[in-house]
Amino acid sequence: MIFECKKPIRFHHCDPAGIVFYPQCLVLCNEVVEDWFDHGIGVDFYKLHAEIRRGVPMRHLEVDFIAPSMHGDELTFTLYVARIGGSSMDIVTTASMGEQVRFRAKQTVVWADLGGAPRATMIDDEWRARFGRYLIASKD
Amino acid sequence: MIFECKKPIRFHHCDPAGIVFYPQCLVLCNEVVEDWFDHGIGVDFYKLHAEIRRGVPMRHLEVDFIAPSMHGDELTFTLYVARIGGSSMDIVTTASMGEQVRFRAKQTVVWADLGGAPRATMIDDEWRARFGRYLIASKD
Amino acid sequence: MIFECKKPIRFHHCDPAGIVFYPQCLVLCNEVVEDWFDHGIGVDFYKLHAEIRRGVPMRHLEVDFIAPSMHGDELTFTLYVARIGGSSMDIVTTASMGEQVRFRAKQTVVWADLGGAPRATMIDDEWRARFGRYLIASKD
Amino acid sequence: MIFECKKPIRFHHCDPAGIVFYPQCLVLCNEVVEDWFDHGIGVDFYKLHAEIRRGVPMRHLEVDFIAPSMHGDELTFTLYVARIGGSSMDIVTTASMGEQVRFRAKQTVVWADLGGAPRATMIDDEWRARFGRYLIASKD
Repeated sequence: MIFECKKPIRFHHCDPAGIVFYPQCLVLCNEVVEDWFDHGIGVDFYKLHAEIRRGVPMRHLEVDFIAPSMHGDELTFTLYVARIGGSSMDIVTTASMGEQVRFRAKQTVVWADLGGAPRATMIDDEWRARFGRYLIASKD
Repeated sequence: MIFECKKPIRFHHCDPAGIVFYPQCLVLCNEVVEDWFDHGIGVDFYKLHAEIRRGVPMRHLEVDFIAPSMHGDELTFTLYVARIGGSSMDIVTTASMGEQVRFRAKQTVVWADLGGAPRATMIDDEWRARFGRYLIASKD
Repeated sequence: MIFECKKPIRFHHCDPAGIVFYPQCLVLCNEVVEDWFDHGIGVDFYKLHAEIRRGVPMRHLEVDFIAPSMHGDELTFTLYVARIGGSSMDIVTTASMGEQVRFRAKQTVVWADLGGAPRATMIDDEWRARFGRYLIASKD
Repeated sequence: MIFECKKPIRFHHCDPAGIVFYPQCLVLCNEVVEDWFDHGIGVDFYKLHAEIRRGVPMRHLEVDFIAPSMHGDELTFTLYVARIGGSSMDIVTTASMGEQVRFRAKQTVVWADLGGAPRATMIDDEWRARFGRYLIASKD
């Protein structure tokens, strides 16, 4: 299954060159992960951190910037899981405008226990099932 | 040659987990590239864009997040050039606190002509010499 | 008439104290003004800048921070116009969670001609009518 | 006494209009307050929060935007205290480029105890003396 959402490019995402400042692409990816937990996984991202005491800190990130985005664009984001390991997983987020892919991020996030100093912890069967619904064998 | 500068981690770089929000690592990398042009290359980053009409948009980005950074840390950044191609180059930026590497970003940037719609353009001999002073055969 | 929209407080709006970093309140106010142009005034904020060559730079800002907001809150924003002058106007934006007001911003923005160096310009009858639909005699 | 520091306007502070995005002016003001604690007051802003468990949340903010700032500008910031109340104080921060004032912010901050839910607390004699060194009867 693929999670999908739309996000407008705001004035404040853009730089003096008139295009999205690239770290803002990653702020948007972070929002997409937040939306995925809220509306796809069905666990509020706030409660994940504050009550369940789990988080998804970034370990590794690869991004291809294929075409620039501008103020006024509305991007369609898709998200799927490319790998679920013992205590980490790979998430692929793609931003498009119509047929044109704008950027694609592959993020390896750690499944972290936040009760105390954050540390990697096993993805248990319940969570593995939740994430597994979005697992697609990566074409990379 | 390696370019080096120091940057404090500010309150506003950090998230509710108390550590640097990862897109802010890339805002800091962008500042380091700006400082490198200003103080290493010797061409003001503002003039590069506004007068010389050149820029360095991001094509590809890889980041390893090795250890978290917190408000109050002062990070040492190093930057070197790992590859100079026809119209792009690879820049490696490493952030450390003492002996501990915190994150390392490898960025492929395009050498872009901004006179009109931005487009990749040849790195001429003069610029190749400037960037070449920071060229180090990558160990990756 | 009062313009209204809702916005979630994201992880990336919050600081190490776990509450919205106050400049992010103003980023959100800027989004509300953008939404007001797009969906209230009926003129796309992007086209306003890029085609109509008008903008609303800030001249004066007053904000009361009444109660903190946290990750996971969904704020209701209301916006009305408190004054329309010759070439500026006052916009009042209020963010609430249920009955509780969180912050209120009064912004004096200039109606600027962006064709060349930005300069204040008369709000003509057509724009005066558009903004006037949201004019409410301020209680301040 | 007046605290003073300089800050460059970075590429990432600026918006598609080529000038500083106004919420970024407040991010810069926040950095100036951080620098004032670190280098003026002599108490590390990180330790203030993490060890001393005090903070300075914003209650009220007034900003005059007098002239725009652009990428490449280096602004001189001055900070003084205009009022010290029982559990709050007014801080005036002015950003200039040469003789030209760019913006001026008057901020009422609360002196907050962070040991538990943040709450306003008395500014004791020791802190009153520290802040008092920067007290200047306001001309406003």
